[in-house]
Amino acid sequence: MNNIALFGYGTVGKGVRELIDRNPLFHLISVFDRKEKEKELGSLLITSIDEIINDKEVDTVVECLGGDSLSYEVIKKALKNGKNVVTSNKETVSIHLKEYLSLAEEYRVSFEFEASVGGGIPLIYPLSIQKDFDEIYEIKGILNGTSNFILTKMQDDGMNKEDAILLAQEKGFAEKDPTADLEGLDMVRKGNILASIVSKKEIDNIDIPHFGISNINPQIIKEILRLGKTIKLVTDIKFQNDGLSIVICPFAISPENPLSTIKNEYNGVMIDGEYQEPLTFIGKGAGKNPTASAILQDLIRIEKKIPYPYQKITEKIKVKPDLKGTYLLFKADTLKAVNNPTFKQLKDADFICKME
Amino acid sequence: MNNIALFGYGTVGKGVRELIDRNPLFHLISVFDRKEKEKELGSLLITSIDEIINDKEVDTVVECLGGDSLSYEVIKKALKNGKNVVTSNKETVSIHLKEYLSLAEEYRVSFEFEASVGGGIPLIYPLSIQKDFDEIYEIKGILNGTSNFILTKMQDDGMNKEDAILLAQEKGFAEKDPTADLEGLDMVRKGNILASIVSKKEIDNIDIPHFGISNINPQIIKEILRLGKTIKLVTDIKFQNDGLSIVICPFAISPENPLSTIKNEYNGVMIDGEYQEPLTFIGKGAGKNPTASAILQDLIRIEKKIPYPYQKITEKIKVKPDLKGTYLLFKADTLKAVNNPTFKQLKDADFICKME
Repeated sequence: MNNIALFGYGTVGKGVRELIDRNPLFHLISVFDRKEKEKELGSLLITSIDEIINDKEVDTVVECLGGDSLSYEVIKKALKNGKNVVTSNKETVSIHLKEYLSLAEEYRVSFEFEASVGGGIPLIYPLSIQKDFDEIYEIKGILNGTSNFILTKMQDDGMNKEDAILLAQEKGFAEKDPTADLEGLDMVRKGNILASIVSKKEIDNIDIPHFGISNINPQIIKEILRLGKTIKLVTDIKFQNDGLSIVICPFAISPENPLSTIKNEYNGVMIDGEYQEPLTFIGKGAGKNPTASAILQDLIRIEKKIPYPYQKITEKIKVKPDLKGTYLLFKADTLKAVNNPTFKQLKDADFICKME
Repeated sequence: MNNIALFGYGTVGKGVRELIDRNPLFHLISVFDRKEKEKELGSLLITSIDEIINDKEVDTVVECLGGDSLSYEVIKKALKNGKNVVTSNKETVSIHLKEYLSLAEEYRVSFEFEASVGGGIPLIYPLSIQKDFDEIYEIKGILNGTSNFILTKMQDDGMNKEDAILLAQEKGFAEKDPTADLEGLDMVRKGNILASIVSKKEIDNIDIPHFGISNINPQIIKEILRLGKTIKLVTDIKFQNDGLSIVICPFAISPENPLSTIKNEYNGVMIDGEYQEPLTFIGKGAGKNPTASAILQDLIRIEKKIPYPYQKITEKIKVKPDLKGTYLLFKADTLKAVNNPTFKQLKDADFICKME
């Protein structure tokens, strides 16, 4: 029996509670949130972080707070107090993964973050196994449900961007201010996490170039459709001899590519290695059930003592963005195809799209 | 350091040797095969099963012999001698999984079979985790590279069946006699393994109905193309309150479904659960590198003591095939669409295809 304390009782937190309540392996003993949640939570609610962290009965902390400052405090204290930590928080994981993993090692507990990338898709596991026997060349991921939902509605249903954003907000897929999703910032964090696991290196989010879909318009979509392609916002990670490349950028994808079938709030990742030739995983990338599922995957592994074969993250490296290939550059009413553009050429355009 | 003995030095065995040779965690100490392989194997070759099984230096046996009789002898003896066993052999796993898992438990060793279904795709792991927190409703899998290759060449390139089979044989994807693949027998075994892991029940291969693609012809393909669909041979497993259903049968799939993008020798599986909504995994289903990759996944988990959360297989059950839905029945020159057909109606047709 594993006693769980849950931090954050929002959408994901509620899903985690549901799954814990129906599983005999786990027992939810406290929930940290604001005083206003007392009606829903009754005596489970505790509004002091330290009261939970110092509770000897708590075996595992599940962190669903989001953001970095409070989460960082909770995760660090929990690990130092000998609690396992499971988190769905890509922001804090992308910034502090090295520290979290080394604290977990020092205090002999588990730090798990399957839910931080790709929703319910099991990703951290296959990657952390594969890097031990294979050479991973490239990871391409559609890792943001919000932007993918908006792109799908614009391309498949001819919606304009504003309506697609409104619909995404109505369905709970988009924040009030969806900029971080549309600009690719969310995928910067997720790309960072995947690249760190494989390379065992620390990477700064700020170093990862991202080209989003904020400026997409119906003319651009028409042009790409005319080429028989679909636009998807992709995190492209390349592990090369001369360095690690991460770029977040719209791709024009052919219909034969499995990534083209990833629609709406779904996420998908393609992993290409020397021995493990392209493997593709597709699943719901966000929301209550997928994220709660990923957290349960971690909890079950902790309870059954199935450790991930993580390796320590060593030194920090600078990513070297690889911009080879053909890009379409949209600027005002002009469209230009450019081979191997410079970073400046890409940044100067209103919208860019890599041809696959 | 884990000392490995390899049984069977064919295509897959050679791939396993390559991966072991470049991995410092493992050491290949003996290979069982026929005397003729001496040139390639030198002093590694041992032609006596018992000599290897009784070798106290051997920690883990990798079985790549294929078939059931010799493999069954090797696996049983190895487990009883306290060796871990890793196998890619779906035939022997589908028949003896219950016995192998209980021997592994009794002798406190690992029995691993990731490579037996879906080539390099990590499948056994996510399923064995998911069944512990979620209710799995359905698994749909394209699990046979040979039939998928032939269907792809016929549908995408307009090849006739005979030429597609010849090409598959040339490329090493099809046996001299491809009947077991075309009739769906290979997918019976793989479906059995996946269903057993989730249901924890023993199932007889003979009870699983299968409708293959032996009688497919260009007229049928034209008809399905006209409907805007693609034919794929699918293992459909449904976990229902009133029983377990497994049917192997051609499906007519829409282009939006990720399964429609699985081409040539690729495999793919879609898992649908209550919390984990459709997850799709796509990867190369057969051949040297994918199968060797799956074996390495198992070896690494054994070496790093990352057990699978298997559960004991309990009693035997009879599958109850669920034939609900609309099927196209082709017979001589006639085509009939039938809702919820009887088993006899399906068996009487020359070719059947479920509408998705």
